[in-house]
Amino acid sequence: MSSEERKKTRVTLLDVARHANVSRATASLVLRKSPLVGSETRTRVEEAMRDLGYVYNIGAARLRVERSQIIGAIVPNLTNPFFAELLSGIEEIIGATGKVVILAKSGDRVEQQEMLLRRMREHGVDGVILCPAAHTESTLFEQITAWDMPVVQVLRHISFDMDYVGADYATGMRQAVDYLASLGHERIAFAVHGPVHSAYQERVDGFRDAMLSRGLDPSMLIRFPTQLGEIAQATHLLFDRATRPTAVICFNHLVALGLSAGLQDCGLTIGRDLSLIGFDDVADAEAIRPRLTSVSTGPVAIGEMAARLLVERIADPALPPRRLVNDTTLHIRQSCGRPN
Amino acid sequence: MSSEERKKTRVTLLDVARHANVSRATASLVLRKSPLVGSETRTRVEEAMRDLGYVYNIGAARLRVERSQIIGAIVPNLTNPFFAELLSGIEEIIGATGKVVILAKSGDRVEQQEMLLRRMREHGVDGVILCPAAHTESTLFEQITAWDMPVVQVLRHISFDMDYVGADYATGMRQAVDYLASLGHERIAFAVHGPVHSAYQERVDGFRDAMLSRGLDPSMLIRFPTQLGEIAQATHLLFDRATRPTAVICFNHLVALGLSAGLQDCGLTIGRDLSLIGFDDVADAEAIRPRLTSVSTGPVAIGEMAARLLVERIADPALPPRRLVNDTTLHIRQSCGRPN
Repeated sequence: MSSEERKKTRVTLLDVARHANVSRATASLVLRKSPLVGSETRTRVEEAMRDLGYVYNIGAARLRVERSQIIGAIVPNLTNPFFAELLSGIEEIIGATGKVVILAKSGDRVEQQEMLLRRMREHGVDGVILCPAAHTESTLFEQITAWDMPVVQVLRHISFDMDYVGADYATGMRQAVDYLASLGHERIAFAVHGPVHSAYQERVDGFRDAMLSRGLDPSMLIRFPTQLGEIAQATHLLFDRATRPTAVICFNHLVALGLSAGLQDCGLTIGRDLSLIGFDDVADAEAIRPRLTSVSTGPVAIGEMAARLLVERIADPALPPRRLVNDTTLHIRQSCGRPN
Repeated sequence: MSSEERKKTRVTLLDVARHANVSRATASLVLRKSPLVGSETRTRVEEAMRDLGYVYNIGAARLRVERSQIIGAIVPNLTNPFFAELLSGIEEIIGATGKVVILAKSGDRVEQQEMLLRRMREHGVDGVILCPAAHTESTLFEQITAWDMPVVQVLRHISFDMDYVGADYATGMRQAVDYLASLGHERIAFAVHGPVHSAYQERVDGFRDAMLSRGLDPSMLIRFPTQLGEIAQATHLLFDRATRPTAVICFNHLVALGLSAGLQDCGLTIGRDLSLIGFDDVADAEAIRPRLTSVSTGPVAIGEMAARLLVERIADPALPPRRLVNDTTLHIRQSCGRPN
């Protein structure tokens, strides 16, 4: 029997879906034991599976794996060294399975991401680790489900019905606020940049909650430009308000790098005149002077965790969706001191 | 006629090669007008093409392009921001053609590079922009030729029978040496790191020639560790010799970043106590303090040039191999001064 014939005689998930009068995406959700599906629909789909004798074809999934041996990773950009560290974690795990990792950049553009996913699917990648572009609609999840393409979301999420690996951004923010408060800071700014997505929102919420729980004013949210070169020149934004901060928590390493330079240009001594905390703690945090105190989200570990989840997802597409959140750690170096 | 039948009736390059009693790689070289092939062999292959009525099937190449729409890029690492800038140049041009770019990291390991090339070929990428891993044998060129896979070498080269886009490293070195000499420096060190490859050799040769042509001692070649974190700690290597340099030219941005931090740790003021020049001039050069004087090799422009060459190579595989070298520019900022 040729593979073409086998394909025609085998009961597919689409057959099940039609029989149960639901979409293929819904049938797939039932297969993955998603809580999104109501019990009535679930029962109907499960009955259709029994009626038609549907068996999830793990062998076919395995065959597909043997055919491609390529894992895709889609990230918003490569200018933030965070993503290079994430990738090295992914490659560490994927490389050990004999597969290779190909990387592509969405530029945080939804259309580009869509095109990349389509191309990767057409060319039979075994699975994709996806940091969703900002403003990705949750309908992407349904499309991916319909495609039966193993995908793990990393750093940002659009649906918890798909595997997700991220960091505990809220706790990271609390660690930064608590440390600055312990040094005596009360006027703490949060320097943000870039588009809004789940990881952005979780950091902003985490900052607000941590400030409020200490009775501090959480309203000093200051937006900086996207590009590194422009951040340093925009440092004055920190001082344009009636209330001047004594400490700044940075959204990520790029913001910290830009402000570190900009504050020195203003003739300020970081750690004495103003305290600065980075977020993400990439290798560069150790390489700038003064050394940057930073909340580590653990990019290498997150990459490793995401890769492991994807390997397991490829081996067993029927696993229920999982959600892993890496602990954050505050790395204290030289960029913070007591307020003047 | 199905594409399968057409394939069987068409005279292939392999038919030509067999008829002429040469390898397919050699026949392909003749097609590309490579100077590597002796005139006798060339004549024999050209006669076989005439005898069999061989016509290079540009249409088939175009069809292949329409099928995949993916361009591969293989670089040694992503920790150097240089490669992110190179990629943005590649994407600028490739994106405009409606194709997507996938990136993979060889880790400067020849076996990994081989696996990546094979996987990319199996999955029908339209072509590859390759920064060859250190120690790549020139036989890789023959393999790529035999595969008929359009490849453009970038930054490093293993064979000038394949398209190549790089920078004029020798002139870049001369610009750095001339500038330091004009400030009065005579004891100039060259801080290198990483494996040896064509771009490494061209920089080292360029440094030596530039120093010798000014009657200066070119022997202060100092090797630093590969990882950013270790470079700063190895700064003392600059001062372990009988002759102490008054200025240092750095192999690339990572070395400059590490030494910039390390020199500050030693309590030295960069530009006053010791002059520092970077190489590559990525965006970060502007973001560290003091701002780094650096030789720009133009990573974005090189990426754009390589992408254009690849697009042309895909459209016309019979083009003779080309070799483009981007001009370098010295960007003077704050990290150099007169010797003490």
